[in-house]
Order: sequence, then C-alpha cells, then structure tokens
Amino acid sequence: MNFGIDDLPVRDELRGKSPYGAPQLDVPVRLNTNENPYPLPEPLVERITERVREAARNLNRYPDRDAVELRTRLAEYLTRTAGHRVGLENVWAANGSNEVIQQLLQTFGGPGRTAIGFEPSYSMHGLIARGTGTGWISGPRHDDFSIDLAAAGKAIAEHRPDVVFVTTPNNPTGNAVPAETVLALYEAAQAAGPSMVVVDEAYIEFSHGDSLLPLLDGRPHLVVSRTMSKAFGAAGLRLGYLAAHPAVVDAVQLVRLPYHLSAVTQATALAALEHTDTLLKYVEQLKAERDRLVAELRALGYEVTESDANFVQFGRFADSHAVWRQILDRGVLVRDNGVPGWLRVTAGTPAENDAFLDAVRDIKKEQSA
Amino acid sequence: MNFGIDDLPVRDELRGKSPYGAPQLDVPVRLNTNENPYPLPEPLVERITERVREAARNLNRYPDRDAVELRTRLAEYLTRTAGHRVGLENVWAANGSNEVIQQLLQTFGGPGRTAIGFEPSYSMHGLIARGTGTGWISGPRHDDFSIDLAAAGKAIAEHRPDVVFVTTPNNPTGNAVPAETVLALYEAAQAAGPSMVVVDEAYIEFSHGDSLLPLLDGRPHLVVSRTMSKAFGAAGLRLGYLAAHPAVVDAVQLVRLPYHLSAVTQATALAALEHTDTLLKYVEQLKAERDRLVAELRALGYEVTESDANFVQFGRFADSHAVWRQILDRGVLVRDNGVPGWLRVTAGTPAENDAFLDAVRDIKKEQSA
Repeated sequence: MNFGIDDLPVRDELRGKSPYGAPQLDVPVRLNTNENPYPLPEPLVERITERVREAARNLNRYPDRDAVELRTRLAEYLTRTAGHRVGLENVWAANGSNEVIQQLLQTFGGPGRTAIGFEPSYSMHGLIARGTGTGWISGPRHDDFSIDLAAAGKAIAEHRPDVVFVTTPNNPTGNAVPAETVLALYEAAQAAGPSMVVVDEAYIEFSHGDSLLPLLDGRPHLVVSRTMSKAFGAAGLRLGYLAAHPAVVDAVQLVRLPYHLSAVTQATALAALEHTDTLLKYVEQLKAERDRLVAELRALGYEVTESDANFVQFGRFADSHAVWRQILDRGVLVRDNGVPGWLRVTAGTPAENDAFLDAVRDIKKEQSA
Repeated sequence: MNFGIDDLPVRDELRGKSPYGAPQLDVPVRLNTNENPYPLPEPLVERITERVREAARNLNRYPDRDAVELRTRLAEYLTRTAGHRVGLENVWAANGSNEVIQQLLQTFGGPGRTAIGFEPSYSMHGLIARGTGTGWISGPRHDDFSIDLAAAGKAIAEHRPDVVFVTTPNNPTGNAVPAETVLALYEAAQAAGPSMVVVDEAYIEFSHGDSLLPLLDGRPHLVVSRTMSKAFGAAGLRLGYLAAHPAVVDAVQLVRLPYHLSAVTQATALAALEHTDTLLKYVEQLKAERDRLVAELRALGYEVTESDANFVQFGRFADSHAVWRQILDRGVLVRDNGVPGWLRVTAGTPAENDAFLDAVRDIKKEQSA
C-alpha cells in the first residue's frame, strides 16, 4: 500500500482536493491561459540580461526588501496610463498578483473572517481564501455575467464579508464592471464593515474603458491589483502589484515574507518597465484581434460575452467539454473553466486566431452536415 | 489626523506589530544578516545571464509550474552532498525557505492548529505561524542553547503541536542539533500526533557534522528544508527547497500559488547549481574563518556558543545592545537578535572579520583602561 497525501495530517479542507492549474498539453496552438502571444522584443531581452548581470554580481546580498526602485517605476506607469497620480507610498509588489491577493487576505481576511466574490470569476480568489483560512462566500451574477447589484448588496449586508473581490474585466467571462457598480459595492461594504474592496484589474490594459484607479481618491478601503503577466507579456516573470492608500501598503508589510521579491525579479521587471511603450503597442494589436474574434464568432452564430480582456467567452454549448475536445482534436487548446455552456479562448497572434476560427468553423460545418 | 494601519480592518493579532527585518544601515562592514561575503564568480554571472536571456525570450509564457528541471538538479545536489538518494519526487522549491515554511504551515498548520519551536531560534518560524493563523508554542532550551529534550518531550505531549520545528545548525545561536535529539523529537511527535517535524537546515553546509537527510528513510512525517541563500551565496535569488516523502511534495502543491517560481528564478538557480563545486570552496573558506572567529573571540575572553553555521554567537554582556552600538560605532554592523546577553556576528571575508575583531579588541581595551 502506498503512503499518500491522505496518510498525512493535512488540514481537513485540503483532503481530496487537487492543485490548481490548467491542463498543460503539447499542442500547436495554445490559447488556454490568457498569455500574451508576443515574445518580448529582442532589445528588451538584452536589457533584461544587462540588468540581471548587474543584479547577479550582488546576488550574495539580500535584495532590496522594500523594492523601492521597482515600486517607484510602477507608480509612474500607473500615473501615466491611468491619469491618476500614484506614488511609491501607494504601491506594493509581490510574486504575481496571486501573492498580492494572498498578502491582502492574510492581512484583512484569515481565520474567523470571510471574503466574497461574484462567480464565475477568477477562481484563485476563492482558492487563496481557502489557503489563508478565510471563509469564502460565492456571490451571484446575472445570466449575462454582469454583477447582480441587488443580490450582491443583500449578500454583503447579510454576511458582512471582510474582503470583497471585484474582477474587472472579469475572468473568465471577459466583461468589465462599470465604475458605478464598483462604487455601489464599496458603499455596501463600508456600511457592512467597513470592509476592504479589492478590484482585480489584471486585464485592464485590454479594456475599451478606463482603469478604476481614480476611485482610490478618498477611499482608503479600496485596493486595485494589477499584474505584468498580461499587458507586459511577462507571465514568466511573476510580478503582481497593487495600488491603494499608504496605510494598506504599510499593513501588508506585516505579513509579507521578508525579501520576498528576488533581485532578479526586480531587475527583470525594471527592464520591462523601460519598454512600456513598445509592449503597449502589442496590447493594441491584441485588442484588435480580440474584437475580431468576437465579431467572427458572432458571425458564425455563437453567443459571445462582451470582452474587455485579452480573451473571449463563447457558447452556448449543451456539452462545452465535448466542444473543448473537438477544438483540441483540431490542434487548438482553449479553456473549459467549468462555466456550464461556455468556453474561453485567449486572443493569440493573427495566425493562431485563424487556426482557432478554422477549427470552430469546421466543427460548425460538421454539425450542419 | 492621518489615516493609518490602525484605522484599517486588519486582523487583531497584527495590530501594533512591526514588519520583520534587520535594520539596514549603510556601514563599511555588514556582518548582520548571515549573507555570504563572496560575490558570485564572474563565469557564473555570465552563465546566469545566458540562462536568463534564454528564459526572457519565452517570458510571455508561464514558467514550468512544477519546476521539474530545477527540482531534479536540487535532488542531484542533495544526493551527492548528503550521501542519501533523493529524487525529483522528494524535492519541492519555492521563493526562499520562508515560502517553503509558509506552504508547510498552510498545509499542516493553520487555523485551529499549532506549531512549536525551541527558542531562541529562527524567528520567522513563529512569524509565519502567525501569518498563517497557526498557534505558536515557544519550546525550551538549556542555558547552553541545546534543546532540553525532557522539557521538549513534555511540551509536545501536552500541546500535541501539528508541526515541530528544529533548526540545525540553529540560528541565531549557531549550535547543531544531534541526530539523536531530532530522532527523539520525531518519536515524541509521532506519539502525540502524528505531527510533522520540519528540520530547517539553512546553514547545514557550514556544519562540522552531516545533514540529517538520511533520516528521511522510513519517516514520512519528516521534512528537511534548505536554502540557496547561504552556501550558494545567493541571498538575492530567494530560492528555498525541501526534501521529504513524495506525499509531502504532493500535499504542499494543494496550497502553493500556481506558477509561484518565476522563469528567471528557475534559470538563475539552475545556473548556480552548475557551479556548485566552486561555491562549495567558498564554504570551506568561510568555515575556516568561522572557526577563527570562535578561537579569537574566546582568546579575547568572550563566551562563544559552538558554531556549525556561518555566524558566531558571542557574549555575555550585561547590556548587549550597548555593545552592539559600540561595535557599530567602529564601522561594523553585527546583529542583536534579542537574545539577552548575546550578539551574533556573520563570518565575512578575512578582512571583514579582522575589522570586527579589531573593533571588539578595541572595546575590550577601552573597558580595561
């Protein structure tokens, strides 16, 4: 008999669970994890190696514990692109937005506390809640995946969650949340708490609309989280960050692991931030491709959720997993996020998107034959 | 009135706390954070930039979620140096041993559970327990800083902690824990639990004795944690790892954040592992310097705890903080870890150690003048 997880004294709520993660399959076209399909431009690759070489010469020393240079540059990026002044004191960075969220839940959630999200949404919010001992409340959405404000307000008043998550643009559905909705949720959270409201803007650079960063003014319980994984084409870097009132930045430092951001991570992120303009041009291309995917899928007769992200949710299918498999059989990997009737496809390069559209066209043809 | 941390709904146990971290002062000789004083050799710096360049070209993609190549190389390193066969399936890696410990406590500790350490020891064990909602029990030591086995066994039987930490060589005291002591603690933990026993070997490469890795055989509740910060001279890299039964490696994946180890971290660590032999030669130099510090401090009349680490605990002082300040006034930064009567000095380069010894000699002279 093999000794396994269940023979270990793991926490009860972990028993029978599986690690989070999309299936990793070796197929020609991977449009399943919302990665940016464009490799970093070669001048940026060279700049990264220069900065890392410099960092490596001092690698025997601990990194800057407060990542001051990096946070300063991130603040400048936010100020420039969101039209709202953000300073070093407003910004905190960690190993991916997942670690940012984990630190927020360790600070404001945890044992005896709860967090709410409106599902379907980014499933890591609930998983990190579990990992930090925070109770999880699944809030409602309308059938069109917009947030049901009346039901949400009622859930917040009833459960008085300590942390409210709002993902905009939402993942995996793609739709953005209007500022008025976020403001109404914030007011509800203040009346019930005051509770923290975390706006996850991982995909905001791909939106037709604006960032909600200006809402930070006068709202110390609001946090906006961001990532360099998508718009900066740096999923491999694992750099997430947040903007908030300086008191929030002070508070998360009570739970952050000291020296959590390595010197090579800081060096690489700084190099990427020097090339922001080039990287944002790729974002424009991806937005156009995303809009093309929406239009062509609709022309093929699919239902498509409005998308402000670098991916598109399409349906509806009686058996979405069977369709996922049919697309995979044609060499294209999309994502079945477990939203009944729907699948999600990442906007890739024009060629990758063509391959995807050919696949679904072929499936349509087969069905009608 | 300024809005501050206390105006936010942070967890009660965080109120009034300060972030962990040694004071960072700009002085000529820094012997306070147990860093390796030797910068990485230039061929290794070049190898890091080569590997990072390669990784940067694929940075738009998520990193290998399971870090298979890195864990394989770490397993080979352990097998070669500890004389005990360790495979990929026994090894897990994270952003510093702090994150390894956090994952272990999220898996085996957490709300409603407790962990014990024998203090003074590495204070992050208790702080990460707090951050993960794990109750913390401070276990006893003898006056000579060895573990008081009778009292420890009693504490384990009484509190039935879910996780038992043993740091060997211990930080900040420097002494190693004999294998028999660890075995006795393991037996006590099995009788009371079964509980997990985590042996923190961050400084083991500097020890006169052997790693406890061979104890893993037949003990699925034992975990050995390691770091590349010290022996590999890579504190800036933040690479910690553990060796344990494969079931433990499976279990921590239930709480690890997906893609937690960046592609640049994996690339840099792999480069460093290619240069193990060179780096271990520096370790030999540091061991000789550490032994010299022990001998010279004793010759000066100080009490010195036996050291198997890259640092030395010396005393005793009526007012250790005053002596810390006197040494700092002479341009040398050592560490006051809050162990009454004692200070800790990291073994630096011969020149740095001479500067430190000159400083304490000068203080002695002043006292006897």
